[in-house]
Amino acid sequence: MRNMIVASTSTIHDSGYLQYILKDLLAAFKENNITNLLFIPYARPGGITHDDYTQKVHHVLQPYDIKVTGIHTIENKEEALMQATAIFTGGGNTFQLVKTLHELELMTPLRQAIFSGAFYLGTSAGSNICGLNMRTTNDMPVVQPASFKTTGVLGYNINPHYLDPVDGSTHMGETREQRIKEFHLYNTIPVVGLREGSYLRVKNDQEILHGPHTARVFLKDQEPLEVKTGYNFAQLV
Amino acid sequence: MRNMIVASTSTIHDSGYLQYILKDLLAAFKENNITNLLFIPYARPGGITHDDYTQKVHHVLQPYDIKVTGIHTIENKEEALMQATAIFTGGGNTFQLVKTLHELELMTPLRQAIFSGAFYLGTSAGSNICGLNMRTTNDMPVVQPASFKTTGVLGYNINPHYLDPVDGSTHMGETREQRIKEFHLYNTIPVVGLREGSYLRVKNDQEILHGPHTARVFLKDQEPLEVKTGYNFAQLV
Repeated sequence: MRNMIVASTSTIHDSGYLQYILKDLLAAFKENNITNLLFIPYARPGGITHDDYTQKVHHVLQPYDIKVTGIHTIENKEEALMQATAIFTGGGNTFQLVKTLHELELMTPLRQAIFSGAFYLGTSAGSNICGLNMRTTNDMPVVQPASFKTTGVLGYNINPHYLDPVDGSTHMGETREQRIKEFHLYNTIPVVGLREGSYLRVKNDQEILHGPHTARVFLKDQEPLEVKTGYNFAQLV
Repeated sequence: MRNMIVASTSTIHDSGYLQYILKDLLAAFKENNITNLLFIPYARPGGITHDDYTQKVHHVLQPYDIKVTGIHTIENKEEALMQATAIFTGGGNTFQLVKTLHELELMTPLRQAIFSGAFYLGTSAGSNICGLNMRTTNDMPVVQPASFKTTGVLGYNINPHYLDPVDGSTHMGETREQRIKEFHLYNTIPVVGLREGSYLRVKNDQEILHGPHTARVFLKDQEPLEVKTGYNFAQLV
């Protein structure tokens, strides 16, 4: 049984860290009697330290009596994942995140923890690792992970911070849609383009689109689909 | 001795394939009595076939009596590189290009060919592989190469299609400059952000910026520099 929020971004424009999603997050915490959150800070956005990144989450959740612990401070990390009632993987660089999770041999334990029912929140890079592999990240490959494989707790890949092509752009680099089409030259996995402000709420077999925007679904050799809030992505696989 | 054109892009807005660079390219061909070009099509932009991509280059150079041969049609590719008087690696997906060059064990022969004086043209992905590694590509990691190492015929990395931050953008994904700063958390190599229309003309020890734009140079733990046409990047290393 899974219980997840898989979000395009931690922060929307003109809003504070996690604020746009806080109401739904706190509802999930309450529903599941969660008072402790295990935080995975390894994506290190902008090079923030593991401690500072954990503090940033702590500051948001402290008023609601949620205790946040950075996994980097715990000796037996695998055990910590297995015992966690709630896990949050923050955004940043997906290559750095995946490299660290593989080095510490935590990808499989994380998958097991999620399937065992630990509540999971992922934002951006933390959502990329919910897919089958990290081949649809937008991040720069600043480090080389041992493998691009991720947890596969979803049967498709996420493309977070999904951006529509800009009308009238003179830039010759690829659009996001072109990049995802390139992914489908070499891969058959569906890709969900999640716009900022959108998230998936996963409960058991339901994988429902929330937020104000439609999402764009890319299937190999097919025209992309626009799907509305309330769509169940479980039907993709 | 090196003799190279290392370009941000093959094509600028409102112009045909290779047109903006054609005059300088033909001058280099004439100066070096080049009549044959070995083309490396492995980056496959948009999934174009190796044959079609080679034809695209052929169509541009045929009027000037330059014979274009795709390396994919040659059995002994290493020998072809060693005997080539001119080599062109086209743009597309850098992960796919680097994966193929490593699989075919062509990265070192390509480096040797360039240092032995074969004229080299790289555009976009073909310029990324001139650096020490592909960790500053903009491309999506649609396939996993055995290594991110590239030819290192330049002592720094290129970031092609360099884009300035967009004033007033509400998008929360990283800007190009933020991504390159993340690269410098884990790497010490200088990075040259080449805007579309810019290219490096490398002759022996000179590595000179050409084109209408300034380039942006990123050094670890320093403020980025804007350098003008005529700047010699050789001084970076």
